[in-house]
Amino acid sequence: MDFSSKLLENAVYEMSQLPGIGKRTALRLVLHLLKQPKEQTERLSNSLLSLRSEIKFCENCHNISDVAVCEICANPKRDRSLVCVVEDIRDVMAIENTSQYKGLYHVLGGKISPMEGIGPQDLTIGSLVEKAQKGEVKEFIFALSSTMEGDTTNFYIYKQLNGLDINTSTIARGIAVGDELEYADEVTLGRSILNRIPFEGSLKAN
Amino acid sequence: MDFSSKLLENAVYEMSQLPGIGKRTALRLVLHLLKQPKEQTERLSNSLLSLRSEIKFCENCHNISDVAVCEICANPKRDRSLVCVVEDIRDVMAIENTSQYKGLYHVLGGKISPMEGIGPQDLTIGSLVEKAQKGEVKEFIFALSSTMEGDTTNFYIYKQLNGLDINTSTIARGIAVGDELEYADEVTLGRSILNRIPFEGSLKAN
Repeated sequence: MDFSSKLLENAVYEMSQLPGIGKRTALRLVLHLLKQPKEQTERLSNSLLSLRSEIKFCENCHNISDVAVCEICANPKRDRSLVCVVEDIRDVMAIENTSQYKGLYHVLGGKISPMEGIGPQDLTIGSLVEKAQKGEVKEFIFALSSTMEGDTTNFYIYKQLNGLDINTSTIARGIAVGDELEYADEVTLGRSILNRIPFEGSLKAN
Repeated sequence: MDFSSKLLENAVYEMSQLPGIGKRTALRLVLHLLKQPKEQTERLSNSLLSLRSEIKFCENCHNISDVAVCEICANPKRDRSLVCVVEDIRDVMAIENTSQYKGLYHVLGGKISPMEGIGPQDLTIGSLVEKAQKGEVKEFIFALSSTMEGDTTNFYIYKQLNGLDINTSTIARGIAVGDELEYADEVTLGRSILNRIPFEGSLKAN
C-alpha cells in the first residue's frame, strides 16, 4: 500500500502488528480514530501506555492485578487448599463467571509449546512447585485447554509434583450442556463414556 | 466481564471502542501487547497520538497529507482539468493502484447520510463548488460507492454544479473483470447491458 502520509503509514503499520489485524483493517481503524474527537485517541493511547508500564502481577497467583496480592488471593472466604491451574487471565475470568469455584488460581502465563519456543522456564511452574512444597495446598485442578500443548503442560507439572502429598485432578471433558450427541466428535464422546459419573452425582450439580 | 485490574479494564474498554472490535477481541489484543516488549505498546500509542495531533489535510483535495499540498496535487504531470470525486483516502489509494488515472482528486470525507446524521455541510462539497467556479476543471468524475448514499451525494453535487460549464461523469458499473455472468446480480447485469460500449473501445482498454 502506498500512503500519502508518513504519519498515517506509521500508525497503520503499528496497528497491523496486533494479532488478527491486517493492513486493511488497521487502515480502517486508524481512519476511524481520525474522524473521532482527538480525546478518544488520547484515551486509547494513554490507557495502553499506563497499562503496559504500571501493570502488576499478583505475587501469589501471577494473575494481572493492580495491587501486590490480587482480590481473589486476598479474599479470606476462598478455599486456600484448592488451586486451579490455568493459562491466563481469560481463563480465570471464565471460571469466575461460573460462580462454581471457591478456591484460588495459579496463572501459568502460557502453555509449554516447543513450536512457539515456550519452555517450562518461561511459565510460572517453579512458583507452583514452591507453593506445593509449602503444604497448604491439598489439590491442584488442571484447567488448561484440551490440546497437545495443554496436555504436555499438565503432564510436566504432574511429574514435577511427584513425591509430594498432593492430589491432582483435571476438569471433566465431555459433551457440552445443551449439545446433541450426534454432532459431538468421537474423541469427546468416547471420553464422556469412559469418564461417566453416578447419576445421583449429576443430579446434585444442577 | 469482571476484570481483576482497573488498568486492564480501561485499556480493554478503549480498545473496544474501535469499529468491529468487541470486548473479547479487545482483551485478546491488550493481553498480546502485555506479552510483547514494552516498546511495541509505546510505538503504537505514540504513532496514534502523533497522527491525531499532527495530521494535515491537503488544502486542494482534502486528502490526508503530511504537507499543506499533497504529492498528487503538487505533481505538475497530473491533469488539472480532471477531478475524481471520492469518499476517502482509501478510494484514492485504490484508484492510484490501478495506474490508469492521471487527474487530481477531491476527497469528500464521507457521503450524505441522513441516517448517520451526515449532511452536505459536513463534507467538502462547498470547496468542490468553489473549485468548479474557478474554471480550471473541465470534468468531475464521480467515483462514490454504488449505494443509496453514494447516489444521493452524486446527485446533490450534480445539482450544485448546475449552470456551470463543467462535464460530470460517473465510473462505469458492470460485470467485474474475471466474473462469470451467471453469478452476477440482475441490477448490475442490466446496467452493463444498458451502458454497453463499442467493441473497438473495449479493445483499447487492454
